[in-house]
Amino acid sequence: MTDSSRRGAARIAVDLLGGDAAPAVVVDGALRAADADPDLSLLLVGPQEVADEIIAALPPDRRASVEVDAVRRVVGMADSPLRAVRSDTTVRAGVAAVAAGRAGAVVTAGASGAAVTAAVHGLGRQPGVRRPALCVTLPALRGPVVLLDVGAGLDLMPSELAVFAQLGATYAAVLHGITAPRVGLLSIGAEPGKGDKLRKVAAVALADATLPPGARYTGYVEGHDVTLGGHADVVVTDGFTGNVLLKGIEGAYALAAGHETASGPPVSVPRAAVLLGVPGNVVVCHGAAEPKDVADGIALATTLHHLGLSGRMAAALDPPARAPVVAEVRP
Amino acid sequence: MTDSSRRGAARIAVDLLGGDAAPAVVVDGALRAADADPDLSLLLVGPQEVADEIIAALPPDRRASVEVDAVRRVVGMADSPLRAVRSDTTVRAGVAAVAAGRAGAVVTAGASGAAVTAAVHGLGRQPGVRRPALCVTLPALRGPVVLLDVGAGLDLMPSELAVFAQLGATYAAVLHGITAPRVGLLSIGAEPGKGDKLRKVAAVALADATLPPGARYTGYVEGHDVTLGGHADVVVTDGFTGNVLLKGIEGAYALAAGHETASGPPVSVPRAAVLLGVPGNVVVCHGAAEPKDVADGIALATTLHHLGLSGRMAAALDPPARAPVVAEVRP
Repeated sequence: MTDSSRRGAARIAVDLLGGDAAPAVVVDGALRAADADPDLSLLLVGPQEVADEIIAALPPDRRASVEVDAVRRVVGMADSPLRAVRSDTTVRAGVAAVAAGRAGAVVTAGASGAAVTAAVHGLGRQPGVRRPALCVTLPALRGPVVLLDVGAGLDLMPSELAVFAQLGATYAAVLHGITAPRVGLLSIGAEPGKGDKLRKVAAVALADATLPPGARYTGYVEGHDVTLGGHADVVVTDGFTGNVLLKGIEGAYALAAGHETASGPPVSVPRAAVLLGVPGNVVVCHGAAEPKDVADGIALATTLHHLGLSGRMAAALDPPARAPVVAEVRP
Repeated sequence: MTDSSRRGAARIAVDLLGGDAAPAVVVDGALRAADADPDLSLLLVGPQEVADEIIAALPPDRRASVEVDAVRRVVGMADSPLRAVRSDTTVRAGVAAVAAGRAGAVVTAGASGAAVTAAVHGLGRQPGVRRPALCVTLPALRGPVVLLDVGAGLDLMPSELAVFAQLGATYAAVLHGITAPRVGLLSIGAEPGKGDKLRKVAAVALADATLPPGARYTGYVEGHDVTLGGHADVVVTDGFTGNVLLKGIEGAYALAAGHETASGPPVSVPRAAVLLGVPGNVVVCHGAAEPKDVADGIALATTLHHLGLSGRMAAALDPPARAPVVAEVRP
């Protein structure tokens, strides 16, 4: 039995003011997402006049499905993430809607630090998680590779990387149906003993960690294993290294291919990450997201809701612990 | 006046046993390099029979230009780098040839940790340098980008990143003629205050560092700035992050383009790095180097020798300090 049986119309909260080019890009992205998914219900969090612009652009029969939380403040890229604990900011209000069961997921393209702060403040953490992780799936040559953390957790302890392994392995199973995920620790050589102090201790912690059934720790992997795949389905690292690597790969694809390759469609990295370790579905889009990226983020949030990700994550982390808080949210 | 006026036949020491596919790949690479550069003189460091194979394959009139240091031991990828302090290993013997003035540079495709250990043990460090850095130049969209460190220095202090800024800026000026290099610190956002503890303190250290004339610190850059360029000519980071990023970019080019792109020739990352901060010219090729990579490494070593890199680096680090040790080496 899985939460995915609880399908239904998803209500997705969207932060209208998050992102470098908000609200215009978010407006376009929300409209694209609504166009692509006739079952999508939106909870628009932001200025009423921006929400009205979206509603006016929707087909008349869709308009009644949209709710609005009128919020005017935003946490800017240069603001302290702590500003995101204020309930009058869009990102915090979007998270509050998830916590209250009014939305099955929230999507923001605002500063990722603010999104993490808002999520932890508004939702708390899942059992055993001290630091949440931002997680993406990359299109590697040999199947998808789940990479985490890509920016939430800096200056980590080795035990926190072991928790990321649990989160990532569960995500790979739930989202990608990888029933026996191989978990690798990102380092600078495949041989044991390579890496900095954090990696050397974390390798011991990961070897000793209780991973979800079927998952196993397979040792060090390197930067190219994230793009080529083959050695690990889940790659664990700290948020600094993961963020630098993800952006470097993104730039490499842009440089290598312009907008297309000789051998096929362009390769790109996802511009929406899932925040793992909080009891609620939270999607953080790239700050420089374009409308397509926002629409992709909303589609991803809908998938998370339908699959009941955060509930299944809580169960995997600590089976006898508290019941899932958010997975059973109904729109 | 520059050391580049001291042109002449370069003798380059080559570690015949370094690399995953040594000696075969190194033999092929050395022959390619000799074929491409009629002025190249080689000092082959490894088993006599391997050296003899190279000599036999050279045109008869070139054979007299080759010297051999018969050394049989190697530092393997899984060995402790400390093994490289043994004078009977190929990498250590190659470095010794540079220290003794018998070669203008040494090239190895062996384990980078062993190469760094051998270089520091055999050559020492340049003034003010506590940790040497491995440095590569990437083909960014808007001009070359010098990236360091890509694997020598782990668990660094902020002041060590400031020294890397000096090394990288000098390298950009000497190798690429960039007279006013912009130096960026790799982080996870462009705004001040982004990044982990090391980056936050290093940003202050870099802003306060004495850079070569014309060079300036321009603040944080991100992963994509390494591939796209435009914001910095020199990107400074610790060896863990730099190594992961470089290998990730390499894998991305391989995935994106196969072996060619729609818009032109394939993009790739260099597979030979220069060790900066030691008083001698040391080139470290990728462990999985192919013959072309070894040849590229030998050509790079020849360029370093002709430009008098290590001498000019010493002068830039500490003008009144000891005279260049290696730049005036003559074959």
